[in-house]
Amino acid sequence: MFQSAELGHRLEKKAYEEQVPRLREALLEAQMELGDKAQFPVILVLAGVEGAGKGETLKILNEWMDPRFIAGHALGPPSDEERERPPMWRYWRRLPPKGRIGIFLGSWYTQPILARTYERCGHAELDQAMDRILRFERMLADEGALILKVWLHLSQQAQRERFTELESKKATRWRVTPEDWRQHEHYDALRRAAEHALRQTSTADAPWLVVEGADPRYRHLAVGQALLAALQQRLAAAPPAHSRQPAPPALPAINGLTLVQSLDLSKQLAKKDYDQQLEKYQGRLNLLLRKRAFAKKSLILVFEGFDAAGKGGAIRRVTAALDARRYRILPIAAPSDEERAQPYLWRFWRHLPRHGRVAIFDRSWYGRVLVERVEGYCEVADWMRAYGEINDFEEQLVRNGAMVAKFFLVIDKDEQLKRFKAREQTNFKRFKITEEDWRNREKWDDYEQAVCDMVERTSSEIAPWTLIEANDKRFARVKVLKTLCKLLEEKL
Amino acid sequence: MFQSAELGHRLEKKAYEEQVPRLREALLEAQMELGDKAQFPVILVLAGVEGAGKGETLKILNEWMDPRFIAGHALGPPSDEERERPPMWRYWRRLPPKGRIGIFLGSWYTQPILARTYERCGHAELDQAMDRILRFERMLADEGALILKVWLHLSQQAQRERFTELESKKATRWRVTPEDWRQHEHYDALRRAAEHALRQTSTADAPWLVVEGADPRYRHLAVGQALLAALQQRLAAAPPAHSRQPAPPALPAINGLTLVQSLDLSKQLAKKDYDQQLEKYQGRLNLLLRKRAFAKKSLILVFEGFDAAGKGGAIRRVTAALDARRYRILPIAAPSDEERAQPYLWRFWRHLPRHGRVAIFDRSWYGRVLVERVEGYCEVADWMRAYGEINDFEEQLVRNGAMVAKFFLVIDKDEQLKRFKAREQTNFKRFKITEEDWRNREKWDDYEQAVCDMVERTSSEIAPWTLIEANDKRFARVKVLKTLCKLLEEKL
Repeated sequence: MFQSAELGHRLEKKAYEEQVPRLREALLEAQMELGDKAQFPVILVLAGVEGAGKGETLKILNEWMDPRFIAGHALGPPSDEERERPPMWRYWRRLPPKGRIGIFLGSWYTQPILARTYERCGHAELDQAMDRILRFERMLADEGALILKVWLHLSQQAQRERFTELESKKATRWRVTPEDWRQHEHYDALRRAAEHALRQTSTADAPWLVVEGADPRYRHLAVGQALLAALQQRLAAAPPAHSRQPAPPALPAINGLTLVQSLDLSKQLAKKDYDQQLEKYQGRLNLLLRKRAFAKKSLILVFEGFDAAGKGGAIRRVTAALDARRYRILPIAAPSDEERAQPYLWRFWRHLPRHGRVAIFDRSWYGRVLVERVEGYCEVADWMRAYGEINDFEEQLVRNGAMVAKFFLVIDKDEQLKRFKAREQTNFKRFKITEEDWRNREKWDDYEQAVCDMVERTSSEIAPWTLIEANDKRFARVKVLKTLCKLLEEKL
Repeated sequence: MFQSAELGHRLEKKAYEEQVPRLREALLEAQMELGDKAQFPVILVLAGVEGAGKGETLKILNEWMDPRFIAGHALGPPSDEERERPPMWRYWRRLPPKGRIGIFLGSWYTQPILARTYERCGHAELDQAMDRILRFERMLADEGALILKVWLHLSQQAQRERFTELESKKATRWRVTPEDWRQHEHYDALRRAAEHALRQTSTADAPWLVVEGADPRYRHLAVGQALLAALQQRLAAAPPAHSRQPAPPALPAINGLTLVQSLDLSKQLAKKDYDQQLEKYQGRLNLLLRKRAFAKKSLILVFEGFDAAGKGGAIRRVTAALDARRYRILPIAAPSDEERAQPYLWRFWRHLPRHGRVAIFDRSWYGRVLVERVEGYCEVADWMRAYGEINDFEEQLVRNGAMVAKFFLVIDKDEQLKRFKAREQTNFKRFKITEEDWRNREKWDDYEQAVCDMVERTSSEIAPWTLIEANDKRFARVKVLKTLCKLLEEKL
């Protein structure tokens, strides 16, 4: 993989100076077109061995293009706010919006490759990490991002020469750190780990480009031209034909029995039992979240349900048991324009709670496979891939210590009608019932199918769905609390 | 100030239960109207002595209203990301957008009052801190925020009883901390500091309300009703009549000589001198920012100038001297919808750099007193108050260790015309010249006046303006670099 980047590629000054002006102008033009149309973000990963010129390459790109619309991200150790979220959080918060270029020095590849180099992890773990990266980059590509990954390479000898040269001058001595020499000593291990990682993650959507880093002129022109080619190709491409794919066949409900229909919605709880159990489980929940173990974890609750199924009421019965200083309710409505310029899940990533905190999503990332699917707000391909993306997302949450519980509140059509009418009668509930609610009601069966598919595909051991029989509000609220207590008892 | 909150206010259960349903309904209605129109944000400060029920009050408000549109902020020690920005940054990042309610427990009052209580600061420093708060709240009010501040009070005896009661039960023992008892021992000092702080900061725009905290029913009803009254009053008020005030008289240029006109725009630098000086100052700048002292500071650069004055070129000559990994250019264009839902300065606060970093604003918060003033995009009162707000903002930056340098690039009308025409000829610069540029040009004199006023009112020793003679690009670029080096030599 690295052989052709050890051939000693060089470029004469004259040839370089002849080519640069044209390249600059073309890059600027491409960048302007990108910014004008703002159809997609550009993500450039600049990785490679130390001393191969990552920083200088970033600098020259800033010089050649309009640096106002490029953001370079060189990440050091994570901040405390970052350490309390999944490792990818720090990259999500720095993703470029549509129309902009984000350049990552020290990317999601750095830690896995170094961990393997220094044998802090085995081969299988490296493979796992690359697998997660593949899914992440696939998601970015599916969301429209143009991704280019450059590995700047140096042979071990060229690296030694480079470090020695830098150290020989006072002005550049500071640039060689002990960590650099340490990596130099582990050169072969790093090379092996990198080669393996690159081979596994070079895809059509996010290809790797290995560039010899020794000669700045060669390196800069190679990276510049690669970026230009990728930009031009993408800008020239027709926007993807949004052929309306047919929805994939769902598992037919052979005996008319779906997950949702199999629920016994007649379940009830008498007022007296309700009062007693509400108090019991609220008290238990309160105690559970005051356990010391919770300081190293977080809790993420998702509430979905048919309109008027009582999400708000259930949420309030949960929050009544929480320390008001430590939870946050995130009502999910239409995305803001900053959110629309980012991948779908970005608007949820940005609200992830720190440790010791509770985030309650009133509607959630499941909107994509519920309302967006049923109403046709997104392509079939988009909601189909969402199941996998959501599973990845939740896996990351759980790996980082979040406890995830998801509730879907089910009522039947008659009960919904009764509640719609009642809401129209009550002064301070009138705001809760809109035209849209009546429209959604007409698509009841489609929603029901979407719910069944969703639970089928995204209920996992680590982040299970609980269907809540909600025709009786008291029963529903207590079941939510009880389920939650059980989960926390297992995990804390 | 606290006497009437030590009278032993209580409310019988029956009276409470009679009043609560009506209050809840009215609060909900007001909240809905607030959310629907989204004309202003609501900021509720819940302060007070420990044990007086701040957390419980937040909880009851969440219960009574729609908790989805209330965000409670209980702030503990600042995170490392917060410590590297001015102390107010953590509040700015949590300000509620228009239409929402933000409740702050542990607000901008906490630290100053406790510092005085424990004699970590003197009386004068408390006054200074209150002064800064006054200006902050005035700004919020001017930006349309509804601000209500509640101090929950307990007499020392009531506090002791409260702590003892909590400690006597297993379920509540955890709620009393050593810090609580410490505050109890310093009760008199805390009371004095708080009384002084409250007296100084109770304004018509952001009044304090002292509520006795001993009896939950009394406390909750008092706070709920106060919030309701404030909301209703504000919602009923006609939107402020945007009478177009006349602009205040400017200092007449008696001898036709303004700051801008007094510049000698014929200043030039020969190519040879330029090359040599550019290298010299870029090298010096690079070395300066690698000093160890910079790791505890940050650098904030502001570039403003007439259209086509060469801001971009000057910025690139600066960034050429910087480590590409440690700076960020922030091009300021139209605000996003999330930014429009916040006070004017919010969009700049969110981009403040951490220590060891450089933020370069290509156009900036001065837009308000330049283009917005000249084009009439905001009211006279808005840009008039902006000078003071900007000075406050920059003072906070500097107090926290930022070095702030501001450059205004000046060219004359002939030079601008020449550049506009040249741009129209150059392929990759065409994007830089728009209809708007030609329109702005017609208001040259207004812009010039605005620039003079701006420099007059916002050039301070801690954050000075440097006017740059920019008819000759070479001269301009070197002057920017030279000025910057001089500043850094003084500060680092």
